Amino acid sequence: MKLVLGIDPGTAVTGFGVVAVNGRATTLVECGVIRTNVRDPLPHRLQEIHAGVQELITRHRPDTLAIEDVFYAKNVRTTVVLGHARGVILLAAQLAALTILEYPPSAIKKAITGRGGATKEQVQYMVTKLLRLKHAPQPADAADGVAAALCACLSATLPTLPPLKLPTLASVRNAGRTSPLSRTTESRK
Amino acid sequence: MKLVLGIDPGTAVTGFGVVAVNGRATTLVECGVIRTNVRDPLPHRLQEIHAGVQELITRHRPDTLAIEDVFYAKNVRTTVVLGHARGVILLAAQLAALTILEYPPSAIKKAITGRGGATKEQVQYMVTKLLRLKHAPQPADAADGVAAALCACLSATLPTLPPLKLPTLASVRNAGRTSPLSRTTESRK
Repeated sequence: MKLVLGIDPGTAVTGFGVVAVNGRATTLVECGVIRTNVRDPLPHRLQEIHAGVQELITRHRPDTLAIEDVFYAKNVRTTVVLGHARGVILLAAQLAALTILEYPPSAIKKAITGRGGATKEQVQYMVTKLLRLKHAPQPADAADGVAAALCACLSATLPTLPPLKLPTLASVRNAGRTSPLSRTTESRK
Repeated sequence: MKLVLGIDPGTAVTGFGVVAVNGRATTLVECGVIRTNVRDPLPHRLQEIHAGVQELITRHRPDTLAIEDVFYAKNVRTTVVLGHARGVILLAAQLAALTILEYPPSAIKKAITGRGGATKEQVQYMVTKLLRLKHAPQPADAADGVAAALCACLSATLPTLPPLKLPTLASVRNAGRTSPLSRTTESRK
């Protein structure tokens, strides 16, 4: 059995979820949020986030940290501040020698729902189903932390398929007459 | 006597300078850089930066950390990664209960040269003069760390002047005829 700590980083609210994975079976161990006071100076809030993650690591002894990437920017300042939070979270995991897996938000959505552009509600629905929960993890940031952990579990347990050999556009255009395969066979004659 | 640790944050090269301030006299104690390998994963490099700053704090026991702001962005990704480095530096200072002072790059340039838009060479020249050094601190990132520390020293030792009451544009245009003061006196009649 392995334990994955999933984190959705934030300076105000950092969501987390601890998921146990045993073969293909996944179980939610704990989830919640680390809240900081927006009126406190940033260094103080970073200390709280770092201490919160360290406490989770000490309590659960996870093998892996799964964390959302933040390299997109609607607001540059917000994203840079988020980078500070992510820095102290990565540091806590590195100091505890965890395996660190980073996923863009779209990869987490895709692993869980099959669609990179899924809505928050669709992700929460699938998280609830996949972990056989009675209701979605609350608040939403906690669900995002659980989703990150679940993404790492699914990525690790699913077999890696060889890339599909799809017919090319040209061969699809000719598909009305002959199939790509038969056409290749014909041209070899 | 107080000690200020100045930091110019970076993921590849973090510059630092330790400056002692005694009244209005400032002395350079040590300067240098913390280098990380660009091929190492980010969490590993964050650990090295954090440990490097912690070692400086343990060795010199500074009272204050002076650090450059990074809330401007030519390249969003670079700035966000820099935010990670800044996060672990602020954490080290916060854990050691230092006073943390943050300055935009233009404020550091202005405090040292009198001009917010000064060139790197101008800043280095003034740092060398102000600290009575034989040559500018090398490499340039170390000089930037020293500049941040010196900015904190100068800001703390210089008296705060009341804002100057400059004549308005309209009164300057009329200045050929009467001085702003006499004009005001006249209108009161």
